[in-house]
Amino acid sequence: MQEKIRELTQLSAQEKSLLLQWIDPQDWPDDLTFRQWMIMMKEAGPGIDLDATNAIVDLGLAMARRSAVGRATPDLQALANVLQELQNHLKPPALSKYRALYGKTKTQQPKIDSDPRALQKILDGDSFATKERLKKLLTDPLFDRNVIRDKNAYRSQILIWLKLLAAQGYGALGFPKEYGGEGNIIKYADVFEVLAFFDLSLTVKFGVQFGLFGGSIQHLGTKYHHDKYLTDLGRGDLLGCFAMTETGHGSNVRDLETVAIYDPDNHVIDVHSPGYQAGKEYIGNALHARIASVFAQLVVQGENQGVHAILVPLRDKEGQLLPGIRIEDNGYKMGLNGVDNGRIWFDHVKVPRENLLNRFGNITLMGRYESSIPNPSKRFFTMLGTLVAGRICVAKGALSAAKCALTIAVKYGLRRRQFGPDDGTDEMIIMDYPSHQRRLMPRLARAYAADFALQNLLMRYEAAGDTEIRLIETQVAGVKAYTTWFANDTIQECREACGGKGYLSENRIPDLKADADIFATFEGDNTVLMQLVAKGLLSSFREEFNDAGFRGAIRYLANQVSDSFLSLNPIYKRKTDVDHLVDPAFHRHAFQFRQRKLLYSLGSRMRSMFKKRLTPYDVFLRSQNHMIELAKAYVELVVLHEFQQKLSSISDGPEKEILTLSYQLFA
Amino acid sequence: MQEKIRELTQLSAQEKSLLLQWIDPQDWPDDLTFRQWMIMMKEAGPGIDLDATNAIVDLGLAMARRSAVGRATPDLQALANVLQELQNHLKPPALSKYRALYGKTKTQQPKIDSDPRALQKILDGDSFATKERLKKLLTDPLFDRNVIRDKNAYRSQILIWLKLLAAQGYGALGFPKEYGGEGNIIKYADVFEVLAFFDLSLTVKFGVQFGLFGGSIQHLGTKYHHDKYLTDLGRGDLLGCFAMTETGHGSNVRDLETVAIYDPDNHVIDVHSPGYQAGKEYIGNALHARIASVFAQLVVQGENQGVHAILVPLRDKEGQLLPGIRIEDNGYKMGLNGVDNGRIWFDHVKVPRENLLNRFGNITLMGRYESSIPNPSKRFFTMLGTLVAGRICVAKGALSAAKCALTIAVKYGLRRRQFGPDDGTDEMIIMDYPSHQRRLMPRLARAYAADFALQNLLMRYEAAGDTEIRLIETQVAGVKAYTTWFANDTIQECREACGGKGYLSENRIPDLKADADIFATFEGDNTVLMQLVAKGLLSSFREEFNDAGFRGAIRYLANQVSDSFLSLNPIYKRKTDVDHLVDPAFHRHAFQFRQRKLLYSLGSRMRSMFKKRLTPYDVFLRSQNHMIELAKAYVELVVLHEFQQKLSSISDGPEKEILTLSYQLFA
Ligand SMILES: Cc1cc2nc3c(=O)[nH]c(=O)nc-3n(C[C@H](O)[C@H](O)[C@H](O)COP(=O)(O)OP(=O)(O)OC[C@H]3O[C@@H](n4cnc5c(N)ncnc54)[C@H](O)[C@@H]3O)c2cc1C
Ligand SMILES: Cc1cc2nc3c(=O)[nH]c(=O)nc-3n(C[C@H](O)[C@H](O)[C@H](O)COP(=O)(O)OP(=O)(O)OC[C@H]3O[C@@H](n4cnc5c(N)ncnc54)[C@H](O)[C@@H]3O)c2cc1C
Repeated sequence: MQEKIRELTQLSAQEKSLLLQWIDPQDWPDDLTFRQWMIMMKEAGPGIDLDATNAIVDLGLAMARRSAVGRATPDLQALANVLQELQNHLKPPALSKYRALYGKTKTQQPKIDSDPRALQKILDGDSFATKERLKKLLTDPLFDRNVIRDKNAYRSQILIWLKLLAAQGYGALGFPKEYGGEGNIIKYADVFEVLAFFDLSLTVKFGVQFGLFGGSIQHLGTKYHHDKYLTDLGRGDLLGCFAMTETGHGSNVRDLETVAIYDPDNHVIDVHSPGYQAGKEYIGNALHARIASVFAQLVVQGENQGVHAILVPLRDKEGQLLPGIRIEDNGYKMGLNGVDNGRIWFDHVKVPRENLLNRFGNITLMGRYESSIPNPSKRFFTMLGTLVAGRICVAKGALSAAKCALTIAVKYGLRRRQFGPDDGTDEMIIMDYPSHQRRLMPRLARAYAADFALQNLLMRYEAAGDTEIRLIETQVAGVKAYTTWFANDTIQECREACGGKGYLSENRIPDLKADADIFATFEGDNTVLMQLVAKGLLSSFREEFNDAGFRGAIRYLANQVSDSFLSLNPIYKRKTDVDHLVDPAFHRHAFQFRQRKLLYSLGSRMRSMFKKRLTPYDVFLRSQNHMIELAKAYVELVVLHEFQQKLSSISDGPEKEILTLSYQLFA
Repeated sequence: MQEKIRELTQLSAQEKSLLLQWIDPQDWPDDLTFRQWMIMMKEAGPGIDLDATNAIVDLGLAMARRSAVGRATPDLQALANVLQELQNHLKPPALSKYRALYGKTKTQQPKIDSDPRALQKILDGDSFATKERLKKLLTDPLFDRNVIRDKNAYRSQILIWLKLLAAQGYGALGFPKEYGGEGNIIKYADVFEVLAFFDLSLTVKFGVQFGLFGGSIQHLGTKYHHDKYLTDLGRGDLLGCFAMTETGHGSNVRDLETVAIYDPDNHVIDVHSPGYQAGKEYIGNALHARIASVFAQLVVQGENQGVHAILVPLRDKEGQLLPGIRIEDNGYKMGLNGVDNGRIWFDHVKVPRENLLNRFGNITLMGRYESSIPNPSKRFFTMLGTLVAGRICVAKGALSAAKCALTIAVKYGLRRRQFGPDDGTDEMIIMDYPSHQRRLMPRLARAYAADFALQNLLMRYEAAGDTEIRLIETQVAGVKAYTTWFANDTIQECREACGGKGYLSENRIPDLKADADIFATFEGDNTVLMQLVAKGLLSSFREEFNDAGFRGAIRYLANQVSDSFLSLNPIYKRKTDVDHLVDPAFHRHAFQFRQRKLLYSLGSRMRSMFKKRLTPYDVFLRSQNHMIELAKAYVELVVLHEFQQKLSSISDGPEKEILTLSYQLFA
């Protein structure tokens, strides 16, 4: 470089010596000079194409022009030549790399020029059209939204909207064609997802009527029930509820107390709540429904066959309560006040034998019980399994709420200015603060990740055979918990990121927060679900989670894992270069490593407890926290996997670039 | 042991050989036998004093009795002798250590027999009486609480309560005696804390009227203002608001846009909002107040003297808006709907010169500005400093909300049963699940920690001289952020821990959650406060946060810390025995180590950026996330320290034991 400078004939000796001095590390310009240069660069920078190969030349010229203001113009052409020669000699990296030195302090990524609609199409895939159609419908003035504080008024509004949607065929989408539907659970889930952008009370009411109540008839009932109810309920003409939870039993529904005793003489089932705690609670649609799918212990010929669903009429056509039915309003809730949740008690209510939803267990004309699944506990969990799609929908709903909040917060973050350098320039856009980016951006990336995971789970669920279904159920349980927790945490962060504005109802975050909150609890409490996931992982080696089998599984596991454990120990440890850090294979291994390590340590811990002769239940209890950690690690691995899958399925282009960045941030 | 058995003359040869076999590790009893023993122990266990030295003997006897049911009674005395001998020989640790083997699976701590009232006295210290009195008042039927959804109705209720409190002298507690108070800021804070157990809207309205509005007059005004306003406002006869925040400026109040231009000819100040964004926003009491403390850029003789507070009348005695004042309701909010927050614009409103709160800056009769603090920015931060007590109160309020939620969740957790072992016994109390304990107990411990930290900060603030005040301000900022974040997180966890019940308004958690949420934002946004803390730490070495000083501080720091850094590297690393883990000195070192390590790495990172000639502002931006981490570590160290202090100040007794357990859990 020194040589090069000496060669430059255009420069005077004085200029040369100054330049030589500048590039001598022992003799760098002082702070003040640097400061002045920086200011000049800051001023000149924005006008220059930083990726151009000639950027340095341009920058030099701009600075020269600037410093010449009010003085004689220097010989710009000569200067350009010098700079050009220096540039050719130096071959500096693109100036954009140095942006922080002179642009505004935003460290922007080079902007990717993508088409939002194309991106939306990639994200929505086959669902694009359905979603667009519904989004359009929701912009109709009929769906104008404002804050309604009174629960009765809000519930009436939601009921009207529900019927509008049903009239357009949205409610029946998941039902077979014969009953006005399209037999398409994916479209049904799309609707759920889009409604959740609009109003979560409507979404939940919709889910209760068509997904839970309708779903129970579709999946637990047989042709008789389909013929009798599906068409009407799909149209919203017959409102119903899904009455599973009781005051005394929420997560542990296997031990519900409501009894349904078959009376063979009169061919009726006697449905009864044996006490206050046995009353159904939180039941959505309880104040509007004419009929309920009631989950109760079915007793036939004196024998308890476990929990079954039975259709019990609640009200007559005029809306009057039928004899033996008592219903109370659950009152105001944190959110979802557009949904009429209530308590229901039955006082020896008699319904015909046919009202048993009898796909998995039937009472014969002769008054005997028959089922293709002999084990009552297994039978019940098979019934519950048919409702897995609902769990995916709930997760999608929560995710939609999180997406809304993120959209609001990111948009606000890009407009809001607060504080800034003390140099008289504008205050900074808050999104330019690294702390603000760290609060929102990783969550944005996770939203994509969760989205892909849910889409894919639903597709796999649709297509699954008997063998894969167990695994999918486990994954759905985990991803539901993951997504709903993520949603709550994200909405909270978005609220804070919007400052006081986030607290005003007019800006929607309050409703999103209050409404989405309970998604962590209903359709399976998250903490309980995470234990299910861990048990699923542990017991996927054995058919049944019984003593011997369970212990055997642990032993097997511990052996298995200790083998692969050592070989997995990531050789990467100290690699921290960018290529490595964004390498999907590295991510997969790291996530796997964590999950296996937890599985291994859990396995060996359990084994040593068994050696100490603890009962399996005690072992389970003492491992509970460890199990939950394992489940979390596993779910993140699943989500990572889905993100990678999705990426590899997208063809190259700007949209893929954006998603790849999101992916890297997520991982 | 084998010898001992052989010595026992009371036993037959057969019995001896069985015993010998049992204690031979190669030949342990099989699973089934163990299982049977366990069942017997489970049955016998609960009747026995597990800490008695004779517990093993008792247990053996109980088991013998049990297994003899329906058969001839064995010779219990002989058995007792044998067991006694074995026990003497074995000297086993107290049986309570093995509780998990036979009691119900709860791993209870030995119960500490403490007196809740004594504990309360220790916790409340000098504040006990004040708090008790107020708690009693709040149980009066006049303070009956129920969910009010309509904001106008709710606001009216809150206003009535506010006046009741004022009439009892609670509002004026912090004011001097001459104005009806007790000059006792600690008592004022106690009231704030207790009110927050009752209703957060009332608490905030109370804080706005007496703490913010009243506080601005007390601390920023002079005798003229005290005489004119304090008595009336303390009685609740004169309602006022604290109008600092603007739509455009929340965290960065130094750059407010409202202007107050002094007109020397007419001796009036012209208060004006130059645009929509310059309107005051979120102002509590805006719809009830007759007067406002308005923060505006004070311009005297054409020179901007920075932000000052000026009293501006808003309404006449009949409640009619005065000319030039525009006020809008902020509408429904996530919570605190009993507080009337609104927007206020001023259209060249003229107020007399005397309305300037002139303790720190005055306009003379001659129309000139004078102040004892020449630097306008420093002057403004001195004014803000007088409001530090409010920040402590806000943290206390959020903490009260968290305590309520914890109380609800822990009580529910001790009553609610769900799931359990498959052996026909009762379902388990959910509090007995390790996962449930982990969700709630550490948070309970943290609530104590935060409580002590706040108490102590307030006391130190009361007593502080000029030198300590900076440090206290920094610590208050940090502990406020820490506590309010903790509160939000805790209330959320409590909601989930109560399942569906936590979602019903009748169970209060919804209100706690919605109301407390904004405590993370008002009286200083938490993220912004945490940066203040970090800056405070960095710049406590230099008077001013200017370029040279700042850089010097960094260099100094880096040197300082690198010295002590190595010597700090905890030698404990691998020690994990219980005594060590509960050792306060170890905690202090660990917390200090983390904080210093962060400080060190931050310092050296900043230094290397300075070397690269980044401007101080750029360095600050790039270190932002690091700074926030440092601040968090520092605050936890402060909180730990306060907990240790508190503990060492309590005399021995059961209450200290409880608090020590909490302390250990916290650390
Ligand atoms: C707004 C709303 C709408 C609803 N709609 C319906 C509906 O339409 N139909 C219907 O049938 N139900 C409905 N539900 C009920 C919902 O499904 C239940 O609330 C949910 O299943 C949880 O049950 P729970 O509330 O009894 O909580 P519990 O099961 O009592 O759980 C309480 C707490 O204990 C913890 N816990 C429980 N067991 C364990 C364990 N083994 N280990 C560790 N921790 C444990 C949980 O994590 C939870 O934090 C609704 C609820 C709400 C709030
Ligand atoms: C219910 C309620 C009551 C209130 N009562 C009053 C009252 O009586 N009187 C009154 O004067 N005010 C009142 N306020 C206003 C309150 O003090 C402000 O909301 C608060 O100071 C935050 O300001 P902001 O809302 O403008 O948020 P902003 O300052 O705009 O902050 C928005 C987001 O940007 C982030 N951010 C800002 N600056 C930075 C930075 N430098 N680095 C990184 N991140 C940054 C913040 O963390 C935040 O997440 C009230 C507000 C509410 C909601």
